[in-house]
Amino acid sequence: MTSRRTFIGALAAGCALLAGCVAPVRSADPLPSWNDGAARQSIVAFVAKVTQEGTAGYVPTAERIAVFDNDGTLWSEQPVYVQLAFALDRVRALAPQHPEWQTQEPFASLLKGDVAGALAGGEQAIAQILTATHAGTTSEEFAAIVTDWLATARHPVTGRPYTAMVYQPMLELLDYLRANGFRTFIVSGGGVEFMRPWTERVYGIPPEQVIGSTIKTQFEMRDGKPVLVRLPAVSFVDDKEGKPVGINAAIGRRPIAAFGNSDGDLQMLQWTSAGKAPSLAVIVRHTDADREFAYDRASSVGRLDKALDEAKTRGWTVVDMKNDWKTIYASQKP
Amino acid sequence: MTSRRTFIGALAAGCALLAGCVAPVRSADPLPSWNDGAARQSIVAFVAKVTQEGTAGYVPTAERIAVFDNDGTLWSEQPVYVQLAFALDRVRALAPQHPEWQTQEPFASLLKGDVAGALAGGEQAIAQILTATHAGTTSEEFAAIVTDWLATARHPVTGRPYTAMVYQPMLELLDYLRANGFRTFIVSGGGVEFMRPWTERVYGIPPEQVIGSTIKTQFEMRDGKPVLVRLPAVSFVDDKEGKPVGINAAIGRRPIAAFGNSDGDLQMLQWTSAGKAPSLAVIVRHTDADREFAYDRASSVGRLDKALDEAKTRGWTVVDMKNDWKTIYASQKP
Repeated sequence: MTSRRTFIGALAAGCALLAGCVAPVRSADPLPSWNDGAARQSIVAFVAKVTQEGTAGYVPTAERIAVFDNDGTLWSEQPVYVQLAFALDRVRALAPQHPEWQTQEPFASLLKGDVAGALAGGEQAIAQILTATHAGTTSEEFAAIVTDWLATARHPVTGRPYTAMVYQPMLELLDYLRANGFRTFIVSGGGVEFMRPWTERVYGIPPEQVIGSTIKTQFEMRDGKPVLVRLPAVSFVDDKEGKPVGINAAIGRRPIAAFGNSDGDLQMLQWTSAGKAPSLAVIVRHTDADREFAYDRASSVGRLDKALDEAKTRGWTVVDMKNDWKTIYASQKP
Repeated sequence: MTSRRTFIGALAAGCALLAGCVAPVRSADPLPSWNDGAARQSIVAFVAKVTQEGTAGYVPTAERIAVFDNDGTLWSEQPVYVQLAFALDRVRALAPQHPEWQTQEPFASLLKGDVAGALAGGEQAIAQILTATHAGTTSEEFAAIVTDWLATARHPVTGRPYTAMVYQPMLELLDYLRANGFRTFIVSGGGVEFMRPWTERVYGIPPEQVIGSTIKTQFEMRDGKPVLVRLPAVSFVDDKEGKPVGINAAIGRRPIAAFGNSDGDLQMLQWTSAGKAPSLAVIVRHTDADREFAYDRASSVGRLDKALDEAKTRGWTVVDMKNDWKTIYASQKP
């Protein structure tokens, strides 16, 4: 017994010695694509505050929930939402099975290449396109369709795969938050089953941390095998007032950090900011016409108007893409 | 450099030596309340199979999702579901604000103490009671109401707090699965906001891993502060065919283990069993009239009929509470 105790003592002393021998490794900058401006500083200060045990601002890891809008916050949303580009391609792919679309709007215009004409029908036209292209398959079949499409589809302006149009600074931010004990969620107006097939690979966000709009699904037995069938009916719209509702339904906790870029994120930012814990509300502002797109109050896609006013009133953090980001897109195609 | 390398070598040798010195600690039985029968054996064999790296049955931790029904699977559901007992108590508490209930069914019967008479109105009566008692507050207020009620309410047969009527063997099973890399979810027909205030404390299951039925909620600003208001309208019923739908909506992955006790869990068990990975489907059967309750095919609460037939056909695991469990209830009131 004595000899063992002595040995353990020697080992402990050795470990301390070893630690002394090895020079401390200074950790690399976790946000290399961010310029050292006010936006970066407010993010870093917030993370430092909530992770410092024994202080008033400390937040336990279980409550470190960070929510991210997707379109325009994690990847580009111009000139049209990626999911709409998907839907338009699906109309073309499905057209041979729908001869009636040759004369029926909004499909007829679309098939002639007149996207603007098709979308002139407004929300109803978009709803018809989404329903025709997003329902009628099982959830598993739909995931395969999305995966196949993303592998070959290209952005109309850059010619890059859509999953290569994610923002490098936001990827770094996701990693940085996770390294500091946060769980990162997507809270998007986009369809949840449009995002889940690729968010883990591209953002490191697993399916159970993706919240989005849903259509109704139905459990059925087909040839003795259970399937979930996607029905042509909207179940939940996870946008604007829907975002806090979706967060509450899926997580049941209030986030302490929220990241958005448009008025569709306003209520999520309000909800996050109204908690008792310290909170961080961030708006990504599209100011870089050269490297990405520049748009705000007048844009129909990703309009940023009321939320920008409220950011000023409430002192939320506004990221100026042109000035705050050294790089826009992820350099390696994910 | 040489001296450091030598030191590290000595340290490594010392570590190996230390491991040899210390007698291996045989880990305590993780399921002490389970008799060593077929049910326990099938659970343990399944866990061993999916956790053994390098074998065909191995399942990565991210995919080790286990789903548990709540009523009758994790705690007692007789003589009435706990949430219904809560609703009945709420009717009494709210009656002074509703003089019209003195003459209006199902409230009038309830307030006279005639529960059977009130419930004679069937599903419509239950819906009226649930709506009157579960809506009209914010989500935060409702959580406080549930917490307060659970602190004082007592089970009509045992006189124990409801949260002390959770099954000790199932608590051990939850811990055992989590210790083996599983994430444990509740998938219940009960209301999600009725469960979340206490599931972490009682079961170790955090709010974001609780899936249940929901009523509509609405985002509102009240005195400049955002709130979520519970509306008197059902949004989603997480029961029977709804369980796989709820699992898919919330998790977006198929579970590999499912635990239920009634026909309400049949589709969840089917869905879990139909995956490509190895799977475990378990039914907790109420066979112990002395220590708990004995009921199956003829019971209106927690009826087990079709799922019991299917368990036999498919070789699912059936836990016989009387014979498989040494203890029923958690000995320490959680």
